[in-house]
Amino acid sequence: MTEFYLSKQDVEDLVIGAAILGTGGGGDPYIGKLMVLQELEKGRKIRVVGVDDVDDEAFVVPVAAMGTPVVLIEKIPSGKEALYSLKLLENYFKRKVDFISPIEAGGINSTIPLVIAAERSLPVIDADGMGRAFPELQMVTYHVYGIKASPMAISDERGNAAILDTVDNFWAEKIARVITVKFGGSAWIAIYPTFGKPYKEAAIRGSISLAIEIGRALRESKAHGENPIDALLDVTHGFMLFKGKIVDIQRFNIGGFARGEATIEGLDEHKGSKLVIRFQNENLVAIRDGEIMASVPDLITVLDSESGKPITTERLRYGLRVIVIGIPCNEKWRTPKGLETVGPKYFGYDIDYVPIEVRMRKGDQL
Amino acid sequence: MTEFYLSKQDVEDLVIGAAILGTGGGGDPYIGKLMVLQELEKGRKIRVVGVDDVDDEAFVVPVAAMGTPVVLIEKIPSGKEALYSLKLLENYFKRKVDFISPIEAGGINSTIPLVIAAERSLPVIDADGMGRAFPELQMVTYHVYGIKASPMAISDERGNAAILDTVDNFWAEKIARVITVKFGGSAWIAIYPTFGKPYKEAAIRGSISLAIEIGRALRESKAHGENPIDALLDVTHGFMLFKGKIVDIQRFNIGGFARGEATIEGLDEHKGSKLVIRFQNENLVAIRDGEIMASVPDLITVLDSESGKPITTERLRYGLRVIVIGIPCNEKWRTPKGLETVGPKYFGYDIDYVPIEVRMRKGDQL
Repeated sequence: MTEFYLSKQDVEDLVIGAAILGTGGGGDPYIGKLMVLQELEKGRKIRVVGVDDVDDEAFVVPVAAMGTPVVLIEKIPSGKEALYSLKLLENYFKRKVDFISPIEAGGINSTIPLVIAAERSLPVIDADGMGRAFPELQMVTYHVYGIKASPMAISDERGNAAILDTVDNFWAEKIARVITVKFGGSAWIAIYPTFGKPYKEAAIRGSISLAIEIGRALRESKAHGENPIDALLDVTHGFMLFKGKIVDIQRFNIGGFARGEATIEGLDEHKGSKLVIRFQNENLVAIRDGEIMASVPDLITVLDSESGKPITTERLRYGLRVIVIGIPCNEKWRTPKGLETVGPKYFGYDIDYVPIEVRMRKGDQL
Repeated sequence: MTEFYLSKQDVEDLVIGAAILGTGGGGDPYIGKLMVLQELEKGRKIRVVGVDDVDDEAFVVPVAAMGTPVVLIEKIPSGKEALYSLKLLENYFKRKVDFISPIEAGGINSTIPLVIAAERSLPVIDADGMGRAFPELQMVTYHVYGIKASPMAISDERGNAAILDTVDNFWAEKIARVITVKFGGSAWIAIYPTFGKPYKEAAIRGSISLAIEIGRALRESKAHGENPIDALLDVTHGFMLFKGKIVDIQRFNIGGFARGEATIEGLDEHKGSKLVIRFQNENLVAIRDGEIMASVPDLITVLDSESGKPITTERLRYGLRVIVIGIPCNEKWRTPKGLETVGPKYFGYDIDYVPIEVRMRKGDQL
């Protein structure tokens, strides 16, 4: 048994770690933290269990928020909104959920499953479907391993709801996305309902504990007067990509996504260089002086140089001094179906995916 | 008991009558006719029952197609597509439907309920929710009398489906509309599920038999060498509005609706005059030389001068010689809630609704 109960300190560490794994997406970690702390303060317990603790026949349902993170800042949620979608799905299946799962590691979607687990006294599985954050519903290893996104439930804070049953996961994304836009930019979903056996094969293991571990490493290194970035790279097997100052930021809210581009002018050892980061909710590709440094599905995370804290794409702003790091993605994304689902080509970049550690080794040889 | 079984001749008459009541909307009546004739040729019977034959406790569900009629011409339906939505709604309510109802009188939405009734061996009620056609889901007397549009089912021909449960009927329209657009412009719905008692209060009675009566009057007058327009005005209590030639037609497909404007240059007694008809799927307002002749909720129907056949808005084209008639709407639309729902102001025209027979009387006095 690998189960544990979340402490307040775990929650503090988790939201920092999740924001780093969130690669700029998933919304404000501060809001997510408040959601979970409220539950703990009510005396509720949040039990996290390992993937192998899930029975083959158990009914597993991931819950999440969908939409543009910037809207979630404007309409501050309590995290309980997804309860309604979960209930609709339970009614549809005429079966109670046994385990809650995260769909992604990043921002409030790391914490919503914890709130739902607390409210419903259900265990939450130490796993997710991305090992990071991604902008579309079919961009999960659940999809890669053949689990259907629908029947899924989607609801808003007014009480509007829908149960979708679509022919494939791309249709689930398309229909849920237009509904989310019509709801005002954010919605609450219960999706990829499945059973223990397929779930265990498809899930990315240890995402919650990894996020906590990352947050803890950052916190402890600071407390010990060590370099937090070194600690972060150590625990994530990541790479330092760039250090600089944001000199330009472009945004456009298209089709329910926060798309845009940030330009960073190099400082210190990167003086004279420029790094461009393109994002769609999450950071997708980092290009230094025309050369690709990292791309999806590998993780690209922007940190505040002064505080060492991760910055979500909606908080990027002119003048901010930042450090950009790259982290290798989970191996499940490096399979042919994984790359077809979330590789740079899917996002419209006509480039081949090269694992970040390979790109970095090449860089060393130059 | 006012029940009767539809004959082939009834179907021929009905689609003509329904196209006239459809005021330009509802899609091609020829497609609708083929749907129903196919059912009769398979040996199926279509039993039409009067509103008073419906038990208070009976489960009544209207079925329909939703979307831009022009798309329905491109993707020719069999009429059976709505069976899936009906089945989803039955599963949701865990109850079999007792009576099928039309939602509108016009185009293929007059015939889809007949096809579904035939396929499921269910009676169809001689009534509808408009007594004409309208472009939005809340524009039904069911809404005016407090029946909820949702839970409603919506599906496409690929097998995608959703059950919507919305806080009001405007939200049902909004969400179903974006789904319809995403489905490619047309969808199949089962909506306004209700029971006999509220249905009987809300429905517009006799819509199927009225459509048949209109079609029959046209056919018989032609056979007897009489003026079919006179026969039409007689049976509908309608008014001749204009005679002319279409000289301009503008269209724009916006938000899932076929919107546009037709300009008709007067001929014979209307020489020197111009009539402009504005439409959104259906004809909404007729303006002669700057003066309003008729507006929603009264019916404005365009007929081919030569054949005497009604012309749907998507078939309006330059050079066509047409006769425009106006027909008083059902009294349920002339209530305050009725006019709030489908009056000219709802459609963005800053004019007061004046019943067509009042406008015509004024015209006589001039």
